[in-house]
Amino acid sequence: MHFLVIAGSLRAGSLNKILARWAVQRLGELRPGTSATFIDLQPLQIPVYDGDIEAQGIPQSINALAQQLSAADGLVLCTPEYNGSIAAPVKNLLDWLSRVKPQPFIGKPVQIFAASPGALGGVRGLWHTRVPFEVLGAHVMPGMVGVGQANTKLSGENTLNDPAAQKQLDPALENFMNFAQKLKQPV
Amino acid sequence: MHFLVIAGSLRAGSLNKILARWAVQRLGELRPGTSATFIDLQPLQIPVYDGDIEAQGIPQSINALAQQLSAADGLVLCTPEYNGSIAAPVKNLLDWLSRVKPQPFIGKPVQIFAASPGALGGVRGLWHTRVPFEVLGAHVMPGMVGVGQANTKLSGENTLNDPAAQKQLDPALENFMNFAQKLKQPV
Amino acid sequence: MHFLVIAGSLRAGSLNKILARWAVQRLGELRPGTSATFIDLQPLQIPVYDGDIEAQGIPQSINALAQQLSAADGLVLCTPEYNGSIAAPVKNLLDWLSRVKPQPFIGKPVQIFAASPGALGGVRGLWHTRVPFEVLGAHVMPGMVGVGQANTKLSGENTLNDPAAQKQLDPALENFMNFAQKLKQPV
Amino acid sequence: MHFLVIAGSLRAGSLNKILARWAVQRLGELRPGTSATFIDLQPLQIPVYDGDIEAQGIPQSINALAQQLSAADGLVLCTPEYNGSIAAPVKNLLDWLSRVKPQPFIGKPVQIFAASPGALGGVRGLWHTRVPFEVLGAHVMPGMVGVGQANTKLSGENTLNDPAAQKQLDPALENFMNFAQKLKQPV
Repeated sequence: MHFLVIAGSLRAGSLNKILARWAVQRLGELRPGTSATFIDLQPLQIPVYDGDIEAQGIPQSINALAQQLSAADGLVLCTPEYNGSIAAPVKNLLDWLSRVKPQPFIGKPVQIFAASPGALGGVRGLWHTRVPFEVLGAHVMPGMVGVGQANTKLSGENTLNDPAAQKQLDPALENFMNFAQKLKQPV
Repeated sequence: MHFLVIAGSLRAGSLNKILARWAVQRLGELRPGTSATFIDLQPLQIPVYDGDIEAQGIPQSINALAQQLSAADGLVLCTPEYNGSIAAPVKNLLDWLSRVKPQPFIGKPVQIFAASPGALGGVRGLWHTRVPFEVLGAHVMPGMVGVGQANTKLSGENTLNDPAAQKQLDPALENFMNFAQKLKQPV
Repeated sequence: MHFLVIAGSLRAGSLNKILARWAVQRLGELRPGTSATFIDLQPLQIPVYDGDIEAQGIPQSINALAQQLSAADGLVLCTPEYNGSIAAPVKNLLDWLSRVKPQPFIGKPVQIFAASPGALGGVRGLWHTRVPFEVLGAHVMPGMVGVGQANTKLSGENTLNDPAAQKQLDPALENFMNFAQKLKQPV
Repeated sequence: MHFLVIAGSLRAGSLNKILARWAVQRLGELRPGTSATFIDLQPLQIPVYDGDIEAQGIPQSINALAQQLSAADGLVLCTPEYNGSIAAPVKNLLDWLSRVKPQPFIGKPVQIFAASPGALGGVRGLWHTRVPFEVLGAHVMPGMVGVGQANTKLSGENTLNDPAAQKQLDPALENFMNFAQKLKQPV
């Protein structure tokens, strides 16, 4: 199986990018043979959704991402909450991707994690973040995980140094891969 | 496969009860060999959740329902929206069921429909209705269906007389059964 | 001004009942001349909403509560979250009150607090709890407060023993009373 | 009093821009002496929120908008729903404005309308749209209005040609102005 892993924050030093790169590696460790690709949204320079831009053509980066998503067995999103709800870069990505036909989210397994320096781990926003994915037809895993005080747990390129967090994230990734594999099987 | 079908409204003449009984029959028609059981919540006389009642023992009807749910391959819920959100009888059922160990919703496929005499078909409340199911670990199908003007479409014991509504409900039930079957398979 | 204070949990030993009774007293301390009445839902024995019961008459306790609410300058709700969303006793109360005409929530100021033994203080459920109040026309204060680890902070009949929590609750109550007073003034 | 009116869609021909310009004019008609300013987000060229951009300085357009908002007695937002939730341009605007200190939304009255060519009038997304405004401290009016089939009702620069829609929008605007005036008064 092959997965995409997207970080919902744009800035280079984002905790969610570290978590995303950790997940890329961890998916393969937990289930040998599994591969995953990290998507950094910052260099894609996606504009805010605007129907007048769309009329001139959906941005090439969006079409490419939609193709990668269609080809993948699922998506892991590592995202901050912004103002108690979905982060603008994530909502913007979704609003653009929703314009691509065929729509790449239909039936797609999605796992959402949140890393946050705060105590709550972004858990409040996760329940708003999943809604548009579900509206677009994705199967968002019920078990989301928020990693609080993430600035003390995530570092470097892709290091998670917190056994308690890993104890939540690992089974979530295992469940997610099992789920994706089951959905992939013929009935 | 075997499914439970629950109506979220208590009153005997509820449109959602007609829709639920229609779904019971339709599941078997669409996929011969499939069976389904309609659960009428009204005669169960479930009290409003109260920790002091629980301390004396979870109501027998709740324990029985939890067992039926654990044994089923999935749940179809036909529910009204009350005040733009989850109907009290549904939330109350969930709050009681959440107290049973092991928790019967973990990994359980759930399909939500809404029948409503109004034009919007209860669609606003559906997105709040799914949240506690997901919190409890269920896989709620992304494609929910709201049947508006349902008083002109549903009648008798279990009659749906509206091709347009059926054209939405049938594929939702098919997807749901496919999904449940895939989840049931070993990896 | 006069306020109602309702606890969303039924059981006698509920942390939210302690917080509610604390709020009753604190409203008067913060603004002398203000009075507040604590409503304990448990003895009211409100049945789960059922249109067949309603057809025989809205329960007397609901009609009485609607009148008290109409006469009050606002409502303080102290409520647990159940399964990441609104507590069943609260949703059930709202679904019954919504059937009373004229509807008592229109334009009514509402302040929501949550006490919880957990670390998150019920904050996840608060954002679902406010929705049906708003659907019914209430002005729910944006600043909700969740008191986490409340079992170590609330005790006795109405004692809050935690300066940090009080530092959040006091200004919320002050803002709420100012807001209610402004809405009460003629334009 | 003075209000800002923002359209949540960027494209020039947006139905929500027509509705927003209608609201600008209607506020003054309903209450002589009231003024309102329409804000078109498209020419502001706001980038998707990125902490690395912010580190080099919040965009000038955001600072200017925050000042206008702070000086205004309230905000009217006319917005589409995108994928069942908040439109990306609106969430992005909020995520940027949330970074300005002092935060301009605290205690600010906000009225939300939605225009949509669909039958539901965007009503599903409205309940997600209000959340981050409330998280930021705004008083979002409980009575939101969705104008369905808006392509047949809105035209030209600022024309609303539908008595039924106007019958919902006018009292909402009146209530909103009364509310804003009451909040403006000293206690």
